[in-house]
Amino acid sequence: MTFACFAGISSSRVNYSTKSDMNEVRVLAPATVANVVCGFDVLGFALSEPVDEVVVRRISEQTVRIIHRDDFGLPTDPAKNVAGVAARAVLERAGADFGLEIEIKKNIKPGSGIGSSAASACGVVVAVNHLLGGRFSKGEMVGLAMEGEQLASGSRHADNVAPCIYGGFTLVRSIDPAVDVVGLEFPEIYASVIHPQIEIRTSEARSILPADVPLKTAIKQWANLGALVAGLARRDYELIARSMDDGIVEPVRKSLIPKFDEVKSASLTAGALGGGISGSGPSIFMLTRTRSEAKSVAEAMAAVYTTTGINFHTYVSQIASKGVTID
Amino acid sequence: MTFACFAGISSSRVNYSTKSDMNEVRVLAPATVANVVCGFDVLGFALSEPVDEVVVRRISEQTVRIIHRDDFGLPTDPAKNVAGVAARAVLERAGADFGLEIEIKKNIKPGSGIGSSAASACGVVVAVNHLLGGRFSKGEMVGLAMEGEQLASGSRHADNVAPCIYGGFTLVRSIDPAVDVVGLEFPEIYASVIHPQIEIRTSEARSILPADVPLKTAIKQWANLGALVAGLARRDYELIARSMDDGIVEPVRKSLIPKFDEVKSASLTAGALGGGISGSGPSIFMLTRTRSEAKSVAEAMAAVYTTTGINFHTYVSQIASKGVTID
Repeated sequence: MTFACFAGISSSRVNYSTKSDMNEVRVLAPATVANVVCGFDVLGFALSEPVDEVVVRRISEQTVRIIHRDDFGLPTDPAKNVAGVAARAVLERAGADFGLEIEIKKNIKPGSGIGSSAASACGVVVAVNHLLGGRFSKGEMVGLAMEGEQLASGSRHADNVAPCIYGGFTLVRSIDPAVDVVGLEFPEIYASVIHPQIEIRTSEARSILPADVPLKTAIKQWANLGALVAGLARRDYELIARSMDDGIVEPVRKSLIPKFDEVKSASLTAGALGGGISGSGPSIFMLTRTRSEAKSVAEAMAAVYTTTGINFHTYVSQIASKGVTID
Repeated sequence: MTFACFAGISSSRVNYSTKSDMNEVRVLAPATVANVVCGFDVLGFALSEPVDEVVVRRISEQTVRIIHRDDFGLPTDPAKNVAGVAARAVLERAGADFGLEIEIKKNIKPGSGIGSSAASACGVVVAVNHLLGGRFSKGEMVGLAMEGEQLASGSRHADNVAPCIYGGFTLVRSIDPAVDVVGLEFPEIYASVIHPQIEIRTSEARSILPADVPLKTAIKQWANLGALVAGLARRDYELIARSMDDGIVEPVRKSLIPKFDEVKSASLTAGALGGGISGSGPSIFMLTRTRSEAKSVAEAMAAVYTTTGINFHTYVSQIASKGVTID
């Protein structure tokens, strides 16, 4: 069993020659939580940690090379790698006459449900955009990073890439025909995340969703989402807590995550405002007012999982106001 | 054909002896728009005009008497009158040992779809609460006024009573088990309303709604509602305009309102941010940034209806920051 609070990025930094060299840029790309309770498919937020480290280097050869500085064994073929697909998308859109060498050190475990592939895609897109002199807007970068994400998830969605690029809480109003991301106002707020090391296939998580929902249930869901957006804007923690209720997705998807109800219940008892499944799981997240409450909640989550024999990690993080940052 | 912009309340005030007499109170209760596009069943707002005028007078006899100062021929039997039912509800809840004489002059036409019955119920509840020394909270008054509204609509809902009591834009997060109304932040904003004088039975408007909706459509709806709440809070008129899209209710209910598409299209051309069906119709409302735009939109609406031979009224009003006011 593993139990670790990531207190920041690893001290072993990926190779980076000089900050002033505009042929090379190093970025930090945060983990993100998507499908925030009643905001299924539209509401997400960025964590302060863990973050992936990405160095992008301009090379004259018009190709994309990927070097991994971690042990996750992800593909190096750019056509099969989220970062590679995203890199090619941005080079192509820019009509660039150069290629890229990309070094990635992932601190966000693939398959954890906290936006690992989005961090790879967004990190590369923001880095390449920086090399290009910042020609793309945040909205455009979301669109480009989505192309990488599509490789990982099989469908176009911006749930994780939007908060990864924008930071903070984001609401994806639309991705088609145009990407329309709304950066929300929000108060100081913290997240506790538990990542049980089980695999949930995105296809299964998707297939168990109902095709139709009762109108009454949908109304309740949008009432809660509207209230949650208002609660975040007015820094009303009580309203945030009351609004974090999902009557559509959580009831069916929680069956894929052992001890979900127990984790949620223990978290609320330990002071969480509320929470739910992160992305399509298996991670579970909870929000709190303070860092110390977040630590208590993470401990309560861990206490439930120690009884299961399933390996897990917990994370404690402030919601980051910034997304991918140039280091 | 009738075409009139109500520029305020009528100059013929209902009988009112003295403001300082705490046995009597006069209130003004505003018209309201419910089911604001993507916020079906949860989002509403209060208009500055038209307003109903309600005088409530304490009488020693433990009964409720209703006197109408208008020509709408509404029931005077308190058990069959929205204001009477609401009055009885509040007296009963307070355990009051007195009765009431209620004079009502309605300037909001019954059946118009801009909260006529809610104004009667809320006006009385706020007035009686004032006589009682203000013992009920706004949330409690919404609950009490809902009892009156139930008589009018056949179901418990707070879509109109919430903005009528609170003013401004309100989001009804929940009415069961407890009433939870969120008063939203919003910018200076105006409404144009056209009331075609046709009858839409609430039962018919309700029966044509689908029992179930595709999850994809529901997601789009809550994305738009979340964005609309955010757009109102940050005073972002462009975002407000983009978010006012209803893929669930308007497509089916608009068939009940002649020339709906033409009115909407002409309004958008005349500068409206967006809009839709007010309540369950037949009124149509549009929002604008300025009063002059609202006037242009009302004229564009009227121009469409002059071709129909259907009588109509138009209204131009600022969104009122206050709900029922003690006069």
